[in-house]
Amino acid sequence: MPLHPDRLFPVEVDARGIARRLFADVENLPIISPHGHTDPLWYAHDETFSDPASLFVKPDHYIFRMLYSQGVKLEDLGVPRQDGGPVETDGRKIWRLFAKHWYLFRGTPSRLWFEHALETIFGITERLSEINADELYDRIAERLSDPSMRPRALYKQFGIEAISTTDAATDDLAAHDTILASGWQGRVVPAYRPDAVIDASRPGFRDNVEKLIGLAGASLDYAGYLEAHRNRRAYFKARGATSTDHGHPNARTANLSADEAAALFERVLKADVSSGDADLFRAQMLTEMARMSIDDGLVMQIHPGSFRNHNPNLFAQFGVDKGADIPRSTGYVEELKPLLDAFGNDPRLTLILFTLDETSYSRELAPLAGHYPALRLGPAWWFYDSPEGMRRFRELTTETAGFYNTVGFNDDTRAYLSIPARHDMARRVDCAFLARLVADHRLDEDEAHEIAHDLSYRLAKEAYRL
Amino acid sequence: MPLHPDRLFPVEVDARGIARRLFADVENLPIISPHGHTDPLWYAHDETFSDPASLFVKPDHYIFRMLYSQGVKLEDLGVPRQDGGPVETDGRKIWRLFAKHWYLFRGTPSRLWFEHALETIFGITERLSEINADELYDRIAERLSDPSMRPRALYKQFGIEAISTTDAATDDLAAHDTILASGWQGRVVPAYRPDAVIDASRPGFRDNVEKLIGLAGASLDYAGYLEAHRNRRAYFKARGATSTDHGHPNARTANLSADEAAALFERVLKADVSSGDADLFRAQMLTEMARMSIDDGLVMQIHPGSFRNHNPNLFAQFGVDKGADIPRSTGYVEELKPLLDAFGNDPRLTLILFTLDETSYSRELAPLAGHYPALRLGPAWWFYDSPEGMRRFRELTTETAGFYNTVGFNDDTRAYLSIPARHDMARRVDCAFLARLVADHRLDEDEAHEIAHDLSYRLAKEAYRL
Amino acid sequence: MPLHPDRLFPVEVDARGIARRLFADVENLPIISPHGHTDPLWYAHDETFSDPASLFVKPDHYIFRMLYSQGVKLEDLGVPRQDGGPVETDGRKIWRLFAKHWYLFRGTPSRLWFEHALETIFGITERLSEINADELYDRIAERLSDPSMRPRALYKQFGIEAISTTDAATDDLAAHDTILASGWQGRVVPAYRPDAVIDASRPGFRDNVEKLIGLAGASLDYAGYLEAHRNRRAYFKARGATSTDHGHPNARTANLSADEAAALFERVLKADVSSGDADLFRAQMLTEMARMSIDDGLVMQIHPGSFRNHNPNLFAQFGVDKGADIPRSTGYVEELKPLLDAFGNDPRLTLILFTLDETSYSRELAPLAGHYPALRLGPAWWFYDSPEGMRRFRELTTETAGFYNTVGFNDDTRAYLSIPARHDMARRVDCAFLARLVADHRLDEDEAHEIAHDLSYRLAKEAYRL
Repeated sequence: MPLHPDRLFPVEVDARGIARRLFADVENLPIISPHGHTDPLWYAHDETFSDPASLFVKPDHYIFRMLYSQGVKLEDLGVPRQDGGPVETDGRKIWRLFAKHWYLFRGTPSRLWFEHALETIFGITERLSEINADELYDRIAERLSDPSMRPRALYKQFGIEAISTTDAATDDLAAHDTILASGWQGRVVPAYRPDAVIDASRPGFRDNVEKLIGLAGASLDYAGYLEAHRNRRAYFKARGATSTDHGHPNARTANLSADEAAALFERVLKADVSSGDADLFRAQMLTEMARMSIDDGLVMQIHPGSFRNHNPNLFAQFGVDKGADIPRSTGYVEELKPLLDAFGNDPRLTLILFTLDETSYSRELAPLAGHYPALRLGPAWWFYDSPEGMRRFRELTTETAGFYNTVGFNDDTRAYLSIPARHDMARRVDCAFLARLVADHRLDEDEAHEIAHDLSYRLAKEAYRL
Repeated sequence: MPLHPDRLFPVEVDARGIARRLFADVENLPIISPHGHTDPLWYAHDETFSDPASLFVKPDHYIFRMLYSQGVKLEDLGVPRQDGGPVETDGRKIWRLFAKHWYLFRGTPSRLWFEHALETIFGITERLSEINADELYDRIAERLSDPSMRPRALYKQFGIEAISTTDAATDDLAAHDTILASGWQGRVVPAYRPDAVIDASRPGFRDNVEKLIGLAGASLDYAGYLEAHRNRRAYFKARGATSTDHGHPNARTANLSADEAAALFERVLKADVSSGDADLFRAQMLTEMARMSIDDGLVMQIHPGSFRNHNPNLFAQFGVDKGADIPRSTGYVEELKPLLDAFGNDPRLTLILFTLDETSYSRELAPLAGHYPALRLGPAWWFYDSPEGMRRFRELTTETAGFYNTVGFNDDTRAYLSIPARHDMARRVDCAFLARLVADHRLDEDEAHEIAHDLSYRLAKEAYRL
Repeated sequence: MPLHPDRLFPVEVDARGIARRLFADVENLPIISPHGHTDPLWYAHDETFSDPASLFVKPDHYIFRMLYSQGVKLEDLGVPRQDGGPVETDGRKIWRLFAKHWYLFRGTPSRLWFEHALETIFGITERLSEINADELYDRIAERLSDPSMRPRALYKQFGIEAISTTDAATDDLAAHDTILASGWQGRVVPAYRPDAVIDASRPGFRDNVEKLIGLAGASLDYAGYLEAHRNRRAYFKARGATSTDHGHPNARTANLSADEAAALFERVLKADVSSGDADLFRAQMLTEMARMSIDDGLVMQIHPGSFRNHNPNLFAQFGVDKGADIPRSTGYVEELKPLLDAFGNDPRLTLILFTLDETSYSRELAPLAGHYPALRLGPAWWFYDSPEGMRRFRELTTETAGFYNTVGFNDDTRAYLSIPARHDMARRVDCAFLARLVADHRLDEDEAHEIAHDLSYRLAKEAYRL
């Protein structure tokens, strides 16, 4: 069925009317996408995407995790095996399997994103099913070959004003250089993601550190290591980066003395690093990153609380990012204190916090962000990038932190075609939330219009200094 | 006042209309009750129930806990004392005390269950009060003597298709044998609940273990103990069991080597078992139970997180199940990992998880169930078997796990007369939730009809292999 | 814009109509304010308040924490420095800065409280802005000099029937004596808050203990210390106190032997008290306070879970209560057990529990209060004294604990002019909640009227024995 113009709005007629008016104002604002995982090569090479299965199924862990949970094998969905062993390569077969299980996504955001993309990009308004799977496959495949479906054309069609990729600290950013050199008007900026050179519990940590230091021509000691970070951050900044991003198992920070930190660095470089030392080093480096952000102005993001690769059998067969990352209880009050004691009152720092533990919204994050000048709250993240998740985020944070300690929306996606759908959803849910506040007279409608604009556009642009 | 046909539906007229249409489809579906605590002797002997107080007050910890919290003595409600000391025996006096405090249940599910039973079973539409207490007592008492009020007749009247009891591992299931031998067409199956032979911190543990092993004719060592479990599971299965159930203080699992497990078994049999060993043994046995489930096909249920008998004075006087069991914070991510590492990817296993910690719905349980093929989510449980509790369950799990990693409703009750009320409530709340998704255009109405049917009937039947 | 008569009511027309009818019944009930932080000197001396900034900005941590979070300096808001250094003293300048940032409070309860006070006390219906800042300042300032704006006149205008202050255990309650001696008919009672003589981790603890013991003429040992508490409680009670209040970092209780407790007392008096001993002593003293409450009838309140003065730099400059108190995860099940084992079944004790951790509402607090005769639940507190916070409180506690294990509303405020606004908000939100239960037929409207009255007036009066 065609997308309904009132989707995600309040059902009650007065509130719905308010939501409609608010949304009409922001529906067509440009997209600021300050945090995401699209591939910079797409914009650099501007090549057409391949078949529908490669576009919608194989790379989307939201999709295949759900199918897997119901007994579908990842091999049958064409997800590559680590050992290079055989997996399904026939896109049409994969698509049919997906279509057969499409009902599993009822009530999920994936459903809404997919159908938004189908209709707005491919002109398809039928609901996917086993019956029409082949027909839709053909229609999508045909359309994919059109020049208007290339990344740069889509960037324009989507109304993107700026988009950030996420890039390893040791990345040479060649794709970004290509984009910059191409003369194309799109704005694709990198973000500095140093997890692989900060998390000593990851495989290849020492190699990554040596590579980082080598790139900077620094010495293999703690001073050289910090120097290398500063050097790489400058390298990223020169290519448009405005932010760093830190995906840690928890939100712990530390503020060791220089001697302690240097000794810790020596210890974590060793093969038999303890989990305690690895944890402490991650904690220390968040504080160091904050210190550097004050100097170079890069906005800092912390994404804590995921137990990565919870399923060892699946990890051994298929590697990372296969839908087996599970949130866990995450504290912020004690954990962030060392960093905040050092820099929390410094308005030059913008530290954006995310969470996978919704209990922290009202208990910890909103009170912290409603006090510390350096703190802002990132939008509902990952599993909570959804209508109910976004609603809970606003209900649980606004009364304590207000709207202006939040930073608007980011889509955090590697699914390029879902970007307009995700921003559309976020704008609708925010307008619906605002409409309820107007409808029960907590807010005046003229203010709600201003807030809707801020949440849809201005706050993201300003918070991320884009 | 008579039950309103729109109770628990959305108030807004369009959404209410959708809910009405959805509910009309499922209202009269048969009841699948795959987890509960009714007494198999009821079905075996088919005797009439006694007086109203014995039916509605004395055995229902939802009822007397609330009265107790407001200063009513359990003795005055006829709750039996452990020492056999005097308690009120006059059903009418107990009923009057209950009626006097009936206002305490405003806003609680007990209120809704009770009034549903009063109207649909006894034809009473007045609200209970001190004034009409005697009259209602008489009307109920009179009706109770009618043959149509016997357990088997009610089974038919309630539209039950299958119901599971919960039975100790050492139970001889004589009542179930009687039912099977009687030629009655009702389907009453046992469930294997081995807590008393798994939890070494309970009084009588060693005796229970010896009894278990004796029943199986096995040896008093770990191999014999496991053999005895397999033997008893087969005994239960032969009498219709399709599931096991495990009520543990937490969700911890373990996967020790055979030698470690055998040594642990020797330690927990001793009188001075440490709480650490008892905890580890419970953890180990969950993994063993999963292993056996893969072999014999019994569906596994874990009900963790209750601090049982929190009130020692009350426990000494009145024993277990007196409303003093208090939920506590319960983690699943680390706790279930040993079991999931072993069997989480095995589609032959169905492991149904429950929780008393609603924070785990969106943070842990939905992401786990939305990934592991072996996992499913049980419905909102115990304190959350309520309109708001069920609504939160759907709001917090659906976007990540979908509807199809849940298993429909179970009533989990020992209050036979409340069974239709509980299923009615669950179907209404689910239809209300679906109606909201349809009303704001997240779901099409034809899909909602299918989901409503699945949640009311099909999923429970399939998940529990009934 | 003028306050809307339907503010905070359900938007749907039928539910709104019910809410209107419920609220009409309770809108003008007297205010019972059994817990708060107004200054008894106000009522004793009955002097006019000073300028608008001193009234609305400088003393209100809800206000300046939000401004501070967005980079406004506390000095510029006239917040006094610990070192007596210069801060802004021009009320008009402070007011302008406040007005300029007024938009930050959109969606917060502060917005609603402020506008309620502006309209009902000052007759101002315009929205504060930079443009009208001076004009509103002048209108408020002019009105403040009117005799009708003195504390006692406002007490009457607000419809207060009784109000409690919160007072240190060593306070001489001179202001309360002045009030009592004055013949004024207002009822202003003290509450016994012994944190400073119980929490050994606070600066000046030993001095405070010595002062307490000195006031009672008792001996400097544990027996004398307990005697001093009893003495001071009697002193408070003689001046109208009906309650004690305990603000602890957590909800831990203990029940040591007399010897253990006496030895612990000796240890905590020493300068190098360990944090473990300080914690245990706080825990022990909660149980002692409960024991004393059973004797003297003072209602006991526990407010746990705030990490006080989280921001050390700000604390050094500006001291306590500057918006840097952050909630943290708080458990009750194990923590309260020693106290409850001793006194939980004693109906002579009323122990009112508060929380800053909303996850405990449904998981721990409602089950505990729905069982133990001694327990009641305090209303949504601090950050949750807000429309969404109060709604969540009811949604998460009512189904398990009912309405009658809660104690109505308390405003907990030091902002005198916000008291009517806060009670207005609480009554509206409760009526809105009840209206929803009536609208979807979980409750009859006549019952809802009775409950609304109970929540607005009777329960607070009875629970606090006022």
